[in-house]
Amino acid sequence: MRPLRADARDNRARILIAAEDVFGQAPNASTEEVAKLAEVGIATVFRHFPTKVELLEAVLTVRLERLRDRAIELAGHDDAGSAFFGFFTQVVSESASKLAIAEALSASGSAAGEAAKEAGAGMRAAFGVLLDRAQQAGAVRRDAGFAEVYALLVGASRGATAAGLEPAVRDRMLELVYDGLRS
Amino acid sequence: MRPLRADARDNRARILIAAEDVFGQAPNASTEEVAKLAEVGIATVFRHFPTKVELLEAVLTVRLERLRDRAIELAGHDDAGSAFFGFFTQVVSESASKLAIAEALSASGSAAGEAAKEAGAGMRAAFGVLLDRAQQAGAVRRDAGFAEVYALLVGASRGATAAGLEPAVRDRMLELVYDGLRS
Repeated sequence: MRPLRADARDNRARILIAAEDVFGQAPNASTEEVAKLAEVGIATVFRHFPTKVELLEAVLTVRLERLRDRAIELAGHDDAGSAFFGFFTQVVSESASKLAIAEALSASGSAAGEAAKEAGAGMRAAFGVLLDRAQQAGAVRRDAGFAEVYALLVGASRGATAAGLEPAVRDRMLELVYDGLRS
Repeated sequence: MRPLRADARDNRARILIAAEDVFGQAPNASTEEVAKLAEVGIATVFRHFPTKVELLEAVLTVRLERLRDRAIELAGHDDAGSAFFGFFTQVVSESASKLAIAEALSASGSAAGEAAKEAGAGMRAAFGVLLDRAQQAGAVRRDAGFAEVYALLVGASRGATAAGLEPAVRDRMLELVYDGLRS
């Protein structure tokens, strides 16, 4: 890929921020709405993202990369228990808009592309590090394996989204999950 | 609705059993495949269920009614803890095919109809009775409210389905959930 000039880079970033906002709330929204919110012409959107699928993929990738970076950052914190449970809560809280984007992608007949898959794998790996550290610190029970803890993360995210839970109920649900995970 | 003659009733039941099997595995399957498995003509299927949406709704309703009836039956058991956790496990185990049918319905642009909604509400109410009894028996913590426990049930079901979990991982995930729920 040829490097973008500074103003083109700015446009791309603005389009992505607008798209995350628009599609996170209404997966069936049009690319025109994204262009409007980003304050660029529709032609500029199509220059950077020739199809809606490419735009959706880029948005999903950005979100997964951000979560991965947050997990990596938290892995450096002293309190490994708070780092693990804090990240778990963040993933579940943000899941509604992330799932909306993933579903829009799947509704458009496309699976997540390579970049999104790579970011997702990076996020999972970083979550594994957080779990390891929390188990070594005695904050999470040692007999809980990665596969079942990750399934709980996916389940809590989907449960919170599917039921359209109020934040207070979601937090009480998470407390039940966390009590099952504590040593 | 006019009462059905005995042979028409048999055909309807056979079509429903076949449809549950076919759509539970492949939500995009055709009505022809249902007719074939039920060993009836396609015209017979359309006589009972003029559209695929009506057939999907009838299948979803049958499944929800069966779960509701199972919960009501379990509410009479002596061991209220086993009844609650056993029902929770059954719902999660059966969720893959039930969700497939619900998604086929939503993909065909239709929300669940009145009959399915009523059966779903009956299932939720019966689950509430199981939770109450388990809490009174001291098998489930008393500070867990219905809303968050039901959100956990939905989440565990969706988590097990979305991740295509192996049964062993699903069972270990459920053990973590149950440890959080126990008194």
